[in-house]
Amino acid sequence: MILNNTKIILASASPRRKELLEGLGIDFEVIPSNVDESFSSELNPKLVPEYLAELKANSLKALYPDSTIISADTIVLTGNEILNKPANKNEAIEMLQKLSGKMHLVITGVCILVNETKYLFSDTTEVYFKVLDKNEIEYYVEKFKPYDKAGAYGVQEWIGYIAVEKIIGSFYNVMGLPVNKVYEILNSIK
Amino acid sequence: MILNNTKIILASASPRRKELLEGLGIDFEVIPSNVDESFSSELNPKLVPEYLAELKANSLKALYPDSTIISADTIVLTGNEILNKPANKNEAIEMLQKLSGKMHLVITGVCILVNETKYLFSDTTEVYFKVLDKNEIEYYVEKFKPYDKAGAYGVQEWIGYIAVEKIIGSFYNVMGLPVNKVYEILNSIK
Repeated sequence: MILNNTKIILASASPRRKELLEGLGIDFEVIPSNVDESFSSELNPKLVPEYLAELKANSLKALYPDSTIISADTIVLTGNEILNKPANKNEAIEMLQKLSGKMHLVITGVCILVNETKYLFSDTTEVYFKVLDKNEIEYYVEKFKPYDKAGAYGVQEWIGYIAVEKIIGSFYNVMGLPVNKVYEILNSIK
Repeated sequence: MILNNTKIILASASPRRKELLEGLGIDFEVIPSNVDESFSSELNPKLVPEYLAELKANSLKALYPDSTIISADTIVLTGNEILNKPANKNEAIEMLQKLSGKMHLVITGVCILVNETKYLFSDTTEVYFKVLDKNEIEYYVEKFKPYDKAGAYGVQEWIGYIAVEKIIGSFYNVMGLPVNKVYEILNSIK
C-alpha cells in the first residue's frame, strides 16, 4: 500500500489510533490538530463524529496541502446523550453508571483527504455492558483515570474485560478507528 | 478478587490467554498441560472446546490438587468444519481462503476447577470476514506465520485489522478467552 510517496499524517493525539494505524503497516506521522471541538447542539448526535473529523482534517490540510490527512473522532452515545471525556472523578463515575447494564453506541467518524478527494464516513458499534457495581466503577476510575476517553472507559482496559458482554460491529472502531474501512480506502488509492 | 490464597494455574501456553488473564488483575502461574488433544470425530464440533478444556484442566488438577485451575480451548468453525492450527504454509493459505468473504464461529471452551467445583462453559462469537485477495492472504501468512493459531489467523494482527468487518459477541473470546465470564465466576467465589 504505497500512496505515490505522499506523506500521510494522522491528525490525532490518541495513542490507540496511532497503534491501530501502525497495525495496518503503513508509514505516517502524527500531527494532532488543534481545532475547537465545539459543535451546535442542534446537530444530530450521530453526525457529530463526522463533523469533528472533517474539521480536524481540514485544519491539517491547510498546513500540509500536499499530504494525505487521516483524522477521526469517536463519541459514546447512550440514548440521545453524547458522553464526552469526563472532566473529573465524579463525572467519570456518573458516566459509567449511565453505561451500566445497557447497550450504548460507539461512533467513530473518519475523514481522509487525499489529493483532491475527501472520504468522509462513520462506523457504529453496539456495545453491551453488564451491570457494574459501585466498587467496580470506583476501582476502575481510581486506578485507570480514564479522563482522556470518551464515555470514561477504554475497551482495551480492565473495564472492557469485565464489563463488555457483547459487541455488534467492529471492535477496533470502539478503540477509536475502524481500521478495516481505512485500509479499504487507502488500498483503493493507487 | 482473592481466592482464599489458593494458587491459580493457567493451563495454557497461549501468550494471548496469559495477557487476557493478566488484564483481569489476578495473580497466577502458567503451567501448560500436555494432554493428547485428539477427540472423536463423532463429537458435535461445538462441544469440542469444552471437551478439550476439561481434559486439560483435569490433567493439571491431578498434579496440583490444591490449586485453582483455569484452562481453555478455542476452535474456528466454518460450516461444520473445524479449522485447527495449520501445519504448513499451504494449509494456512487454504484455511484463510475458506474464511474469506464469510461468517465463521469462534468458540472457546473454558474449564475452571476450584475446590470441589467444576465450572465448564463455552462462549461463541460470530466473525464476519471480507473477501480476501490472494496477495493479502500470502502477505499475512508469509509475514505473521500463524501456525500456532486455530484457523490460521490472529484477530489482533494485521489480518484481523483488515479482514474483520463485524463481530457479534465477545472480542476477547476470539482472542482466546471470554474474560468477562471468567471474571464473573472468579468473582463469585469468596
